[in-house]
Amino acid sequence: MATSAGTVTPLRMHFAEPLPLASGAVLADYDLVYETYGTLNAARDNAVLVCHALNAGAHVAGLDADGQSGWWDNLVGPGKPLDTNRFFVIGVNNPGSCFGSTGPMHLNPATGRAWGADFPVVTVEDWVDAQARLIERLGIGRLAAVIGGSLGGMQALSWTLRHPAHVRHCIAVATAPNLSAQNIAFNEVARRAITTDPDFHGGHYYLHGVVPRRGLRVARMIGHITYLSDSAMEQRFGRELKAGPDGRLGYTTQDIEFQIESYLRHQGDKFSEYFDANTYLLITRALDYFDPARAHGGDLAAAFAPARGNRFLLVSFTTDWRFAPERSREIVKALVDNGIGVSYAEIDAPHGHDAFLLDDARYHAVLRAYFERIHAEIAGHHHV
Amino acid sequence: MATSAGTVTPLRMHFAEPLPLASGAVLADYDLVYETYGTLNAARDNAVLVCHALNAGAHVAGLDADGQSGWWDNLVGPGKPLDTNRFFVIGVNNPGSCFGSTGPMHLNPATGRAWGADFPVVTVEDWVDAQARLIERLGIGRLAAVIGGSLGGMQALSWTLRHPAHVRHCIAVATAPNLSAQNIAFNEVARRAITTDPDFHGGHYYLHGVVPRRGLRVARMIGHITYLSDSAMEQRFGRELKAGPDGRLGYTTQDIEFQIESYLRHQGDKFSEYFDANTYLLITRALDYFDPARAHGGDLAAAFAPARGNRFLLVSFTTDWRFAPERSREIVKALVDNGIGVSYAEIDAPHGHDAFLLDDARYHAVLRAYFERIHAEIAGHHHV
Repeated sequence: MATSAGTVTPLRMHFAEPLPLASGAVLADYDLVYETYGTLNAARDNAVLVCHALNAGAHVAGLDADGQSGWWDNLVGPGKPLDTNRFFVIGVNNPGSCFGSTGPMHLNPATGRAWGADFPVVTVEDWVDAQARLIERLGIGRLAAVIGGSLGGMQALSWTLRHPAHVRHCIAVATAPNLSAQNIAFNEVARRAITTDPDFHGGHYYLHGVVPRRGLRVARMIGHITYLSDSAMEQRFGRELKAGPDGRLGYTTQDIEFQIESYLRHQGDKFSEYFDANTYLLITRALDYFDPARAHGGDLAAAFAPARGNRFLLVSFTTDWRFAPERSREIVKALVDNGIGVSYAEIDAPHGHDAFLLDDARYHAVLRAYFERIHAEIAGHHHV
Repeated sequence: MATSAGTVTPLRMHFAEPLPLASGAVLADYDLVYETYGTLNAARDNAVLVCHALNAGAHVAGLDADGQSGWWDNLVGPGKPLDTNRFFVIGVNNPGSCFGSTGPMHLNPATGRAWGADFPVVTVEDWVDAQARLIERLGIGRLAAVIGGSLGGMQALSWTLRHPAHVRHCIAVATAPNLSAQNIAFNEVARRAITTDPDFHGGHYYLHGVVPRRGLRVARMIGHITYLSDSAMEQRFGRELKAGPDGRLGYTTQDIEFQIESYLRHQGDKFSEYFDANTYLLITRALDYFDPARAHGGDLAAAFAPARGNRFLLVSFTTDWRFAPERSREIVKALVDNGIGVSYAEIDAPHGHDAFLLDDARYHAVLRAYFERIHAEIAGHHHV
């Protein structure tokens, strides 16, 4: 029976070794916040790393001190598709985030003030390198799997390119080999909303005791539209009025008339209460920059050559227009071109990009089956 | 041979009769700015009214005093698909606009100050009623056709519902019977960007000598993404760097890295120089409110019953994801259900919603053929 991973306490590890970044800058030292669920077996070969996307952190499963469920609690726990009775699952928060690991709101040792906009630009590759150090410190030579959705999926892919010997399986959900012009465009509008908010102060708003809340709200509203499918939004909200089905039109330009407006404003307000604006810029840029084929003249198959010892599961969702199935198929093709074993599931789901976070029966059945295969594989090794 | 309509001078007509609005408010009196091209024939039956969309006005064809071409100059002129050697074409600017007709930047007679946010909410139906008065004043009993794209298409449709006896043909391009939740969502984000700009001052920024330029920029950037198809954006910009093909990545969160960012910022900057923020709110709301089926419990066929004496051409574009072909087909079905004559062309064009403004050979051939048919029909009447 599937139950919760229970109450979990975030852990913290300090790394004193400088982390060289893709940009050429160096993060002199840093902390990573992480959580673990389940037990590392004696062979230390049942560990699964979970990489987070834009609006998440190390709290993947179970309940935190505030009683909040982890962001992938429907997937990760005892008896769940990623079964913590079998696997030792690690959730890690990336540098640059606002959920515990070293980020722009922390002290810049060079200035004694908050990093703010001076926090170095971090990439998917930088995050994966930081995660690899954590895994090494935890005494795990090789992960059974790395898994992530969206931006988390990019990290999962990147593991097989930068640290292929330290991971067996890559599970990349609702992701893409890079951002399209339209993807970048949405990110850029969100960033402009933030950076042109007078409360942004060039990214040093911490010093002014303000937060660019207006910009964050608009950024989140834009993002949210791209997470939902057109049809899901239509089915859930349609043209329903806030005043209800018998309500009269208010004929207003500034007040809320339609339910969808109320919903989006609420999402924006909530987000602006807890998310950091500099983190938003850093994370959207990490998305923009991810492009493993770039160093190979655009040849994605060439980029995946290092991953010949890995195996992959890719999952996409039919109504995801942010990272459409076509983008996953590009990755599948690059893997097949390398003779790399890849399973691919294109899930007929109505929810759009957000589907990767939801408890969809077909989607979870695919993940459960794949993790059972990994479990059997690990058990097989133990019998040898 | 197709030539320009030449230099045209905008005309202005004052209406002293109050215009009752859908909201219940009344516009006590107002001016409409309009332009005409070609000559009204003796039978006064060759007039074609052109309705504008969000970012346009009465200047449809030819050159204005500044040498600027009209927004549909590729379509309207001597020898062009809407041939001004045959037709008397009228471009009209709607109330609430910032392009000459009475709008929020003009004096509110009740207060002696600029209307600002107090300008009444205007609907597609209100605009069509205002246009009908202009047509009557011009001594035109029945338009040969009304034509528009996008929001202009909604006005063309509305003519056949409110003034069906005063128009023969309706040509509605790249339009929809109403906005989807996603359409409204994009409008709402744009409006929030404007109204939360500290320079908006609740819509009375004229009194403060400022313009909510930051909000207008973001609003336009969002809008622009929805006007272009994903594939057109990809083909034109892809992941091209501003630094050029041999350029190095700048690793920046606030500066421009990709060409698409540069393009969008430029579009936003340009727009914020000339477009009025209150007009943006009014026009996006007119889009949100358009929904002729609403008064008929959602039955679009019932809504089109008054149009049984009209004939229609509908045109959509395959890559338009703002008002996708499916939306035009809903209208076609409602017309067919009424036994109303409708031609429908679904043009395979790569440009997305913007295609309705572009000189696409197949699209223009369809319009040319349809206007030739109208011309023959008119000529036929004269022979009787």
